[in-house]
Amino acid sequence: MARRLASLGVAAESAGHAVGAMVQTSLRGVDSHGINLFPHYCRAVTAGRINARPALSLERTSPSTAVLHADHAFGHHSGAVAMDAAIALAADAGTGCVAVRDSTHFGAAAYFGLRAPASGCLGFAFTNADSLVKAHNAKVAFFGTNPICFTAPLEREEPLCLDMATSRVAWNKVRERRQSGAALVPGWAFDQDGRPTEDAAQARTLAPIGAYKGFGLGMMVEVLCALLAGGPAATELLPMYTSPIAARRRISHFFVALDISRFAPVAQFKARLQAVVDSVRRLPGEAGQPVMVPGDPEKQCFERRSVEGIPVSPEVLAQLHELDPDFDRAVMP
Amino acid sequence: MARRLASLGVAAESAGHAVGAMVQTSLRGVDSHGINLFPHYCRAVTAGRINARPALSLERTSPSTAVLHADHAFGHHSGAVAMDAAIALAADAGTGCVAVRDSTHFGAAAYFGLRAPASGCLGFAFTNADSLVKAHNAKVAFFGTNPICFTAPLEREEPLCLDMATSRVAWNKVRERRQSGAALVPGWAFDQDGRPTEDAAQARTLAPIGAYKGFGLGMMVEVLCALLAGGPAATELLPMYTSPIAARRRISHFFVALDISRFAPVAQFKARLQAVVDSVRRLPGEAGQPVMVPGDPEKQCFERRSVEGIPVSPEVLAQLHELDPDFDRAVMP
Repeated sequence: MARRLASLGVAAESAGHAVGAMVQTSLRGVDSHGINLFPHYCRAVTAGRINARPALSLERTSPSTAVLHADHAFGHHSGAVAMDAAIALAADAGTGCVAVRDSTHFGAAAYFGLRAPASGCLGFAFTNADSLVKAHNAKVAFFGTNPICFTAPLEREEPLCLDMATSRVAWNKVRERRQSGAALVPGWAFDQDGRPTEDAAQARTLAPIGAYKGFGLGMMVEVLCALLAGGPAATELLPMYTSPIAARRRISHFFVALDISRFAPVAQFKARLQAVVDSVRRLPGEAGQPVMVPGDPEKQCFERRSVEGIPVSPEVLAQLHELDPDFDRAVMP
Repeated sequence: MARRLASLGVAAESAGHAVGAMVQTSLRGVDSHGINLFPHYCRAVTAGRINARPALSLERTSPSTAVLHADHAFGHHSGAVAMDAAIALAADAGTGCVAVRDSTHFGAAAYFGLRAPASGCLGFAFTNADSLVKAHNAKVAFFGTNPICFTAPLEREEPLCLDMATSRVAWNKVRERRQSGAALVPGWAFDQDGRPTEDAAQARTLAPIGAYKGFGLGMMVEVLCALLAGGPAATELLPMYTSPIAARRRISHFFVALDISRFAPVAQFKARLQAVVDSVRRLPGEAGQPVMVPGDPEKQCFERRSVEGIPVSPEVLAQLHELDPDFDRAVMP
């Protein structure tokens, strides 16, 4: 992947974050946001939607805030720069909040959120996204799947990580089933008239979690992203797949780091949160169900796939081979 | 209500916030968190759970952070002091984050969140609460209904306000139906063995929104509150109604104010968000359903009840008359 991006003229820092994020995301089992998107990103670089050699510009606007002008960089790159800036602001001022404007699709929010805990910070990552979630009581979509990612350090394991769309599922999961022909789970999606559908081909909008609550959380994320950064909001945002691949989408993100040590000794915080996590995992479970905390399935998948590799569908593998005939041999010389 | 609290020895600032919050909350239609709780609060003051004359102490820990030691004050009081401190920190440092320890039940989070927009800030308010939400895949509860409140200023009307439990409903709504004998809506609650129930008397735990997602959001709120403030977390927290009324609960809250002007001109932000809100309200609706943004039902109720008054059930009115025979005549002399 890095070799291919280099051949497309992508700057090393952009390529490093894009590849690092996609591989981490696929290892964590989030196939909808990992290397399956690599062919799309390559097309977006070639067409100019993603700027291969961006000039990022960070503007500090107060002791705890900054705005990053992303110059249409890979979202994986601009997001990492912004989160690292938020962590630096938090070290200095207690909190760091960084709005990112003129960015592109950033993949999974966890890649950014997971940068904070090693610095003794809580992390938050948000992005706006295509208008796809049916507005509460409306027939049509307004806000996107606008995800919320929250991270916190633990004492004896990788950080706690919640990374969730404010819809019941991410649009890329509907897309996966459209490609595979599988039916949707009832309650996931609606057709063009706002009626529930289990046919992935007919799905036009997604259900928010908790009816008006998920709709409201999606609106909160839109405010933190598009309204603070001054980018296109909701239906103003060009869709990822159905707009011209050369069109620049001007996605907005928002990142927060909070210095735990300003509230409690970090070691004590980590030990207490570890005890909370351990207690949840020991709760009596429903028949046959393990009780887990957010991020546990991804941690288990990361361990497994780090040994066994990342499964890739024949369709995606064919696309990858079009990009580079040696694609799947490159990492196993 | 103020007269009764004064007769119980409650300090004027505590009484002002408690009464102000309860009346605002009931006017907004959130009966589960408004004046219906007044008899409970009076018992809690008399028994010593709520400290009638607290010595609040604010400790600034960085340019953007502080911890408020609430000394078991009315949560309405400590929350307002903490949110106002967060707003002051944001004016100075761009962001203000205030953790509150050793507090009591604070009613509706909106009372605090709604203090931020007039100062050109986004507002966030969080609290932990009784362990009542069934952990994902478990038979029993772990975290509380741990609400999230988010506010933002609008150009031509009162602020946008999302105030939501991370459970499908607040426990006080189950309690209301237990008192009235009405059935629960399917999917709201579970019995002592973790099985779905529509019988309010059998309900022991609540469903989170969006399965593991609402459970994860509740955990995020617990981390922001109990873990940062160093208070009891989840099942460590004494229940509101079934623990001895004299027992001090040491509830934790967390408040954030974010200075919009560090990201965008406030007038431009307000105009853009107003346009977003107006666009949502104009979307084609499902048959007979108005399309609204979070807080719209509460705004409509506030207008109506400000004219017509707050309806009170015969049961609550009897309790209020026990506290003061002239209760409902006091405000209509």
